[in-house]
Amino acid sequence: MEAEIEFIEGGTVTSPQGFHAGATAAGIKGSAGDRLDLGVLFSQEPCVTAGLLTSNSIKSAPVLLCQERLRESHRVMAVVANSGCANASTGDRGLADAAEMASLAANGIGVEAEDVLVASTGVIGRLLPMERIKDGLNSISLSDDGGHELARAIMTTDTFPKEAAVVVRDGDTRYTIGGVAKGSGMIHPNMATLLCFLTTDTAVDPSFLDLALRRAAGVSFNMVSIDGDTSPSDTLLLMANGMAGNAPLLEGTRSAGVFQEALDRVCIRLAKSIARDGEGATKLIEVTVNGAVNQADAVAAARTIVSSPLLKSAVYGCDPNWGRVVAALGRSGAKIEEATLDVYIGDTMVLKAGTPQPFNEAGVVQILKHSEVTITVNLNLGPASATAWGCDLTEEYVLINSKYTT
Amino acid sequence: MEAEIEFIEGGTVTSPQGFHAGATAAGIKGSAGDRLDLGVLFSQEPCVTAGLLTSNSIKSAPVLLCQERLRESHRVMAVVANSGCANASTGDRGLADAAEMASLAANGIGVEAEDVLVASTGVIGRLLPMERIKDGLNSISLSDDGGHELARAIMTTDTFPKEAAVVVRDGDTRYTIGGVAKGSGMIHPNMATLLCFLTTDTAVDPSFLDLALRRAAGVSFNMVSIDGDTSPSDTLLLMANGMAGNAPLLEGTRSAGVFQEALDRVCIRLAKSIARDGEGATKLIEVTVNGAVNQADAVAAARTIVSSPLLKSAVYGCDPNWGRVVAALGRSGAKIEEATLDVYIGDTMVLKAGTPQPFNEAGVVQILKHSEVTITVNLNLGPASATAWGCDLTEEYVLINSKYTT
Repeated sequence: MEAEIEFIEGGTVTSPQGFHAGATAAGIKGSAGDRLDLGVLFSQEPCVTAGLLTSNSIKSAPVLLCQERLRESHRVMAVVANSGCANASTGDRGLADAAEMASLAANGIGVEAEDVLVASTGVIGRLLPMERIKDGLNSISLSDDGGHELARAIMTTDTFPKEAAVVVRDGDTRYTIGGVAKGSGMIHPNMATLLCFLTTDTAVDPSFLDLALRRAAGVSFNMVSIDGDTSPSDTLLLMANGMAGNAPLLEGTRSAGVFQEALDRVCIRLAKSIARDGEGATKLIEVTVNGAVNQADAVAAARTIVSSPLLKSAVYGCDPNWGRVVAALGRSGAKIEEATLDVYIGDTMVLKAGTPQPFNEAGVVQILKHSEVTITVNLNLGPASATAWGCDLTEEYVLINSKYTT
Repeated sequence: MEAEIEFIEGGTVTSPQGFHAGATAAGIKGSAGDRLDLGVLFSQEPCVTAGLLTSNSIKSAPVLLCQERLRESHRVMAVVANSGCANASTGDRGLADAAEMASLAANGIGVEAEDVLVASTGVIGRLLPMERIKDGLNSISLSDDGGHELARAIMTTDTFPKEAAVVVRDGDTRYTIGGVAKGSGMIHPNMATLLCFLTTDTAVDPSFLDLALRRAAGVSFNMVSIDGDTSPSDTLLLMANGMAGNAPLLEGTRSAGVFQEALDRVCIRLAKSIARDGEGATKLIEVTVNGAVNQADAVAAARTIVSSPLLKSAVYGCDPNWGRVVAALGRSGAKIEEATLDVYIGDTMVLKAGTPQPFNEAGVVQILKHSEVTITVNLNLGPASATAWGCDLTEEYVLINSKYTT
């Protein structure tokens, strides 16, 4: 019997059974207080939880709190999250504030403080406005479609909320995986993403949950680059509350494979949304590298190409300057032979076996005008492939980032 | 007796004895033909020559030619260089064109073809217009102040030529070191620079010359980043013709130390010019990292900070968002303890022992308005220091690179 995996239209982090969320405009982003900036995600039942936290050596106070709580126990009941202030580089006071934020949220929903995780995103080096957070948490009401509000509450310079959910029918078991994410700036491989909360009502064995999250991040969030900068706040959480009533999924089983596939799809959809909404972006760039000698080479090549500021600028300007693909590939560290190298923009071959091909320049300019641009490189050296996503580099990126705090 | 090292006002690559240069507008940059784009550097006497060539796996035809000729022999009489076309990703035809370009230049000046090196910069994946190069070479006349023309002939999107020279008085010996360079885009550590030709009339032992060039690049060109992209064309050459009449300088001697110091100064001045003239740049950014546990950490930290697009955008906008320094530092791989970390913008301390310091925001905005911005990080963990240079990221960078070929 085939398993079915289907995206839910309008699906979000509260699509799986038993998950509730809500958000408020607490005024963390500024005194205007008209933008959602504080939210809570809650599960009726305790969740087995896996987390991937930033690889940056500078870790925000919420990341340190999550790290500690996920190490001690995988049991989580809720996450409290805010935008507008990252609570990073804030010393001991920041650590105390993160713990206090968890306690306040725990009191509000009636759970133990240590079962609450915390995530913060925004400006580094500023203290959380704890009074506003306290007042804000008092005004949040949770609902089973509150995921949409939570998705908006974690936005910083994002222009749209990132949400996705799939329903999975696997034999007699039916379950859902949902998620929300925020991206925009400081997004780069070697880490999870800025913030992403994933939920499922299927029961999952904790060690498989960890593995599944790592694998899913490997083909999704870790393959997205906006600007090469990583953040001290990056937090990717996956909570499984078991309310579907199945026996916990175990690594190596057929059902675990179905779960992995479904989780990968949710993560790839969220990751592509993040790439598409990179700061100032007008286009999604998808780079696929085939024929690498091994997976590490394929990943390095795809990431390096999609991260190149020169290529990103060229795509923005619809400039068919494919030499920049080759230049970025050349510094990726992947094994390359010029004599076997093929490059395509869209489906137009511009380089074949290392030799430039005559091509219809106007046609390629048209391809580059689309909102999704694909670039394919065939190294023709081995069996490995990888796909990475990014966005074009525009004047708007510079404008956004030249006046973020002031 | 102290040695003296002094910059020569208006000094250039032809300041050392016996070096001549010239350039012409051959029309490689376009049929208008009003911009210099082809030049020759010639030495009356054969030169011991050291070279550092791109670390990119994709190497231009001229780079492959230089690699081969420098491997076979250190003897060089001339360099022929053009802008407007990189002769990279051009297959066998490109290799033949590079060799032909060397022959044409050799015929013109009356030297052996194999004693001529070649350097090309510009668009990747296009063939050299050999007829224009042939005609152009016929029209070049060499002179002992032709270095200024050569400096302009190798410019692409550079807005000013980069030239420097020092005179060294070391006991009875008096010699000169000069150089020209071009930069602008595709500039990043792990390589030399885009193009840089250095000359000296002192006699230098070949193995010391190699070492000296590597060391000088390590503290200058390898510490400059414009956009993280590297080029298949990067070529750094150092030619020593011995016309000062001294005994060849040998590694480990006091005089060799003086030469190293003088060479470092020339290279740092050229490297800073390149950073200052990064595509679209309005400011030079200098990042110094002190107190690292070792040199590799200091270098990695300084380079990563100066390369951060978020920091570069913030400096452009005079935004005192020092959290971006910390975030970039955190992903540099250098060993860091938040509890001992100090950060300064100009001489204003914004982070002390990991704790944000109250500071005069308007004052720091003023500091950021200067055309040179210094950022200092003290890790307070060890003895090592490094300085890196870069520039701010502006809308103009994006505009330049969104329409380079078209």
